[in-house]
Amino acid sequence: MDLKTLIRSVPDFPKKGIVFRDITTLLRNGPALEEACARIADHFRPKKPDVVVGVEARGFILGTGVALKLGVGFIPIRKKGKLPHRTHREEYALEYGVDVIEMHTDAVEPGQKCLLVEDLIATGGTAHAAVRLIEKSGGVVAGCGFLIDLAFLKGAQKLAKYDVLSLITYDSE
Amino acid sequence: MDLKTLIRSVPDFPKKGIVFRDITTLLRNGPALEEACARIADHFRPKKPDVVVGVEARGFILGTGVALKLGVGFIPIRKKGKLPHRTHREEYALEYGVDVIEMHTDAVEPGQKCLLVEDLIATGGTAHAAVRLIEKSGGVVAGCGFLIDLAFLKGAQKLAKYDVLSLITYDSE
Repeated sequence: MDLKTLIRSVPDFPKKGIVFRDITTLLRNGPALEEACARIADHFRPKKPDVVVGVEARGFILGTGVALKLGVGFIPIRKKGKLPHRTHREEYALEYGVDVIEMHTDAVEPGQKCLLVEDLIATGGTAHAAVRLIEKSGGVVAGCGFLIDLAFLKGAQKLAKYDVLSLITYDSE
Repeated sequence: MDLKTLIRSVPDFPKKGIVFRDITTLLRNGPALEEACARIADHFRPKKPDVVVGVEARGFILGTGVALKLGVGFIPIRKKGKLPHRTHREEYALEYGVDVIEMHTDAVEPGQKCLLVEDLIATGGTAHAAVRLIEKSGGVVAGCGFLIDLAFLKGAQKLAKYDVLSLITYDSE
């Protein structure tokens, strides 16, 4: 299945000049959702991940799907203040200012192999903060799986030391 | 498996006097995540849902899992301003003020049977707004599946006309 044909491009969202790649048109298609999760799971299965990690909010969707395909659990990384227990936190740069993501300090067991799954990598700021959270917790990054790579933003270069898979690539806006 | 034993109760979160039921300790357990999704899917499979609908953010987790178990797609309902295309919106009451959730106007096809899946039902405000969004879009509510029902808040009564399933019930705080 050509998953890319199921992505809807929305011009000028969230602001003028940006083309937003809308995955909801893929997600609502049962066979496409199944295939996207299965292809990411199949690629990383040889690494034997112990758990999948995904970042709020869209990362929860494919992350859970890949976890089920691999038969492992799912750990949510959330925006500041959303997790109820003790957390590690990491900042990452936005266009203006910084944002913070958090993971429970006891979410990952030391040495657990963690597969990061996200819907999209752009500049890589969020994904890089997420792998820092995993490693701060004593986890080992088994790889990083993305549905979409906005390759012209070169975010995957921030993750060059890991096994990175993207199912769909955009080489320009 | 007794899923309830895997829920962590965090006192005084998000504010004093509230006991927060933390599902992250269940989600990170692969067999428990699998069982929770499978039990909700098995209950509603006879209704032949065409698609699963879940509300940002925690609703994305079990919602996607149940969609994969049923072999159907997933539709996200999001907070205000997050969806890039045209949306329907519904308000629901908070303790102080109102909040808004949105669904793409073309997410549900007329007559599609939609299964709402959420992690938790408390007063039922969000879930009731979600079923209104589904029906405004021309969808038919095939049922409402929850991991947790805070039954003392009587939220399920707002959904009395639908088939409602909860896997875990708390009868008091």
